[in-house]
Amino acid sequence: MMRKIQVVTLFPEMFAGVFGSSMMWKAQKDGYVELSTIDLRQFGLGPRRQVDDTPYGGGDGMLLMVEPLWRAVRQAKKNDPTAKVLIMTPRGARWKQAMAQRYSEDEQGYIFICGHYEGYDERIMALVDCEISVGDYVLTGGELPAMTVIDSIVRLIPGVLGGENSAIIESFSDGETLEYPQYTRPKEWQGMVVPEVLLSGHHAKIAQWRADHSLRQRNS
Amino acid sequence: MMRKIQVVTLFPEMFAGVFGSSMMWKAQKDGYVELSTIDLRQFGLGPRRQVDDTPYGGGDGMLLMVEPLWRAVRQAKKNDPTAKVLIMTPRGARWKQAMAQRYSEDEQGYIFICGHYEGYDERIMALVDCEISVGDYVLTGGELPAMTVIDSIVRLIPGVLGGENSAIIESFSDGETLEYPQYTRPKEWQGMVVPEVLLSGHHAKIAQWRADHSLRQRNS
Repeated sequence: MMRKIQVVTLFPEMFAGVFGSSMMWKAQKDGYVELSTIDLRQFGLGPRRQVDDTPYGGGDGMLLMVEPLWRAVRQAKKNDPTAKVLIMTPRGARWKQAMAQRYSEDEQGYIFICGHYEGYDERIMALVDCEISVGDYVLTGGELPAMTVIDSIVRLIPGVLGGENSAIIESFSDGETLEYPQYTRPKEWQGMVVPEVLLSGHHAKIAQWRADHSLRQRNS
Repeated sequence: MMRKIQVVTLFPEMFAGVFGSSMMWKAQKDGYVELSTIDLRQFGLGPRRQVDDTPYGGGDGMLLMVEPLWRAVRQAKKNDPTAKVLIMTPRGARWKQAMAQRYSEDEQGYIFICGHYEGYDERIMALVDCEISVGDYVLTGGELPAMTVIDSIVRLIPGVLGGENSAIIESFSDGETLEYPQYTRPKEWQGMVVPEVLLSGHHAKIAQWRADHSLRQRNS
């Protein structure tokens, strides 16, 4: 069964270029995952398809209402009944590589709800299985965090990076930076030369140099 | 002078939807910032516009070469000679709200270099003023991190969020979650009711309830 990842958002047009390029495009083309968006606006209330309203108790800004989101998530669950519902919020669990690994291994679909910078009705949480945060910074909406989390998951689905063996320069198994400095042609560029040992063809010395320089980065 | 943010990337098409929607679209339309991409491929070497090559010392994967990036950054600096050059790397300084605030206040342009998941020639760092990381997870390229950092900066440029006063529900001054649960219509939804106090019109009690519930989130 092809893994489905669905995103509920007011800005589906933000996803076209991201889902349509690079690794995420290829992962879909090769049949590893199906990425799609659900336009929250289509589930808005009344003739104006209202999706937000003012907060009870006062305050500026508009909050996402629960009913349109509930309708949108219900639609997403029709497509994928066992999917897990995730919302991107600043108070959520901090996303880490180990979580990306686990999510990539689960034989499960995901529905991402993209929040809105002005907030949402708290009852939306009744629809949600997990709250995720990508970092200690405020963003305009949940769209960029959703794309980020999706990228980190999809690239780890077995087969997606294929024979490219790109995992060799991985970092962040448990938050540590493991890569070493790398160099490609030319040997000299504007006075900067490639470390001699890397040109030596001496595999053991090269491995040692790389190990030393990985450690240096880890300690810095 | 309008602030310029330029992004050097192999995937400029990823940015169209993101720069063209929501807050970032409006900030450009209102003249607060100019967002653009520079296609690294156009600065590639030779008739095939080569931008990457195999690593010295062996290993799988292809590394971004320094020369095409140097040419692309030179072009970006022609557009904005004093711009600061940033690269998105896993080993960079962890992006935080306080940094977004500072960058939004600098009267300066930025050039973002988007790395490539397989790595880059270390000498690229000679072009770079600052390395930034958005979190402890591995992504396919620097594109999503660049969008994330740009969003967090642009929304703080004075005037961008305008009279909407959306900063009221900000979180993360120094990493703490400060918002409180919010509710909007209807008063009852699927058996879940809005807390009575928020309907009371009693401003002091509402403020107290919100303070109490902000604390609860901070401690959880």
